[in-house]
Amino acid sequence: MNSHEHQPDFSQGVAFVRGRYVPIAEAAIPITDWGFLRSDAAYDVVTVWEGAFFRLDAHLERFEKSCARFRLNPGLAPAQITDILTQCVRLSGLKSSYVEMICTRGQPPWGSRDPRQAVNQFYAFAVPYVWIANEEQRKRGLHVQISDVERISPRSVDPTAKNYHWNDMTMGLLGALDAGAESVVLTDGAGNVVEGPGFNIFSVKNGVITTPDRGVLEGITRRTVIEMAQSRSIPVQLGTLSADALRASDEVFLSTSGGGVLPVTKVDNQAIGSGNVGPVTQSLTALYWEWHEDPRYKTVIQYA
Amino acid sequence: MNSHEHQPDFSQGVAFVRGRYVPIAEAAIPITDWGFLRSDAAYDVVTVWEGAFFRLDAHLERFEKSCARFRLNPGLAPAQITDILTQCVRLSGLKSSYVEMICTRGQPPWGSRDPRQAVNQFYAFAVPYVWIANEEQRKRGLHVQISDVERISPRSVDPTAKNYHWNDMTMGLLGALDAGAESVVLTDGAGNVVEGPGFNIFSVKNGVITTPDRGVLEGITRRTVIEMAQSRSIPVQLGTLSADALRASDEVFLSTSGGGVLPVTKVDNQAIGSGNVGPVTQSLTALYWEWHEDPRYKTVIQYA
Repeated sequence: MNSHEHQPDFSQGVAFVRGRYVPIAEAAIPITDWGFLRSDAAYDVVTVWEGAFFRLDAHLERFEKSCARFRLNPGLAPAQITDILTQCVRLSGLKSSYVEMICTRGQPPWGSRDPRQAVNQFYAFAVPYVWIANEEQRKRGLHVQISDVERISPRSVDPTAKNYHWNDMTMGLLGALDAGAESVVLTDGAGNVVEGPGFNIFSVKNGVITTPDRGVLEGITRRTVIEMAQSRSIPVQLGTLSADALRASDEVFLSTSGGGVLPVTKVDNQAIGSGNVGPVTQSLTALYWEWHEDPRYKTVIQYA
Repeated sequence: MNSHEHQPDFSQGVAFVRGRYVPIAEAAIPITDWGFLRSDAAYDVVTVWEGAFFRLDAHLERFEKSCARFRLNPGLAPAQITDILTQCVRLSGLKSSYVEMICTRGQPPWGSRDPRQAVNQFYAFAVPYVWIANEEQRKRGLHVQISDVERISPRSVDPTAKNYHWNDMTMGLLGALDAGAESVVLTDGAGNVVEGPGFNIFSVKNGVITTPDRGVLEGITRRTVIEMAQSRSIPVQLGTLSADALRASDEVFLSTSGGGVLPVTKVDNQAIGSGNVGPVTQSLTALYWEWHEDPRYKTVIQYA
């Protein structure tokens, strides 16, 4: 037995829980936290690529807004959150990482059912980078299905405040996987697609990019796509996107922190356009990774 | 220091986590469980009153249905679940208890986003009995507000499968508490009330009881109310219940495992009927507790 055996193994990821940094496999939240028992929580995900956060400020700003919308208070300033996220990544040694920050309701004193009396909790973790599409899928394009399951309405839960209400996504995904597709996009009940599990969706038709403007998370990668398109003078239209229009697209792609711009080449088992990854998708994908080198967007991490 | 200090303190409640019984204050779930990160879980709550479960079979049956609906498998037969719940209560020594059983998605192997590959997890806990209304409120009746927040649609999440998608309830409740009410009832977006946080709602008008028939959890206490009304030859109507009809009721009450039949005497700050707890509500409340003595519904717990 040597002292090394007593060192925690941080290589699979690190979490910040109740003021301590622990290996991801040991990270847990109290079973009584309303973040679990009522899914009463807000969160955000920022990625680290080649040793630098990408658009950290934008994610911190959205996290603050999501918390405020749900009347949650992590009790930490953005600079303090940055320190915690950085320490999670640093301890893990991960150069590419998926970094999540979470604020839960916690619990009120025993016997109270008043959310205002709860002590909110902050959690964070850094794990290896997550890809929504594997390498083969990124080359040939994803096959997605449009689901009959409706995305939870904005009249019930505000989708612009990032939250864990995903049962509709999960049930839709299960249906799509059973049908042989690889992911799913949900609709708004009026024939329009909205979003899928972890991503926004885009259509390219006659040189114009369209993405839904309501009932969706306003993804930071979605924003990056819009800004990249503007930088290339490609017109972008925010509005409704019908399922029929999606199927009739020249190109379809997704935006996500889990891989950036991801091509879709089949919808409901029918080829989109040529059936190959299209030129607009390819151009934006390349630019997405180029922007990771841009000092405006990167926050370099000092590892040990 | 004596050996007593090493005994776990089970008096505040007991949880079953990863095959072990632990004090509720120490009970935790992995932060990476999709039961938390995607609110991908089903649950049920059964109560213990004066040392006996009330309608345990009905709760176990509904839990099984909820799990099946979400394609979750706790990996335990009802008799095994009964043993675990009983052991939680027995260790706590609680004669009146709120007992929750939970099945979460768990997590798939690293890198997979396929819920079918996840290893589902079973959790349970027993804590002191939870009242949705305190003693004063039970005597004079609760004051509830009808919220503008719409209950999540059944087209998005099946409300008959008991789940933790409660952001709509929480935001509605916060609005109601701010306005000086004590609880909230949500609507379906078409002018009808549906349910509130932890309860079903009933109207009594001209001797007829009405409760919503869709967009709601089919509560076991709701079923008990319907059966009690039938046993007293009070007509019960399952159908839509408009917000206007609710306000114009002779009596309003809630049904919940958190206290049984609970009177409501104000809706949107206006008195219901006489403003006092009405005779149908009083009669059903008394019968609810009488039925707790009925051998058909009770499962006696052998404490040590």
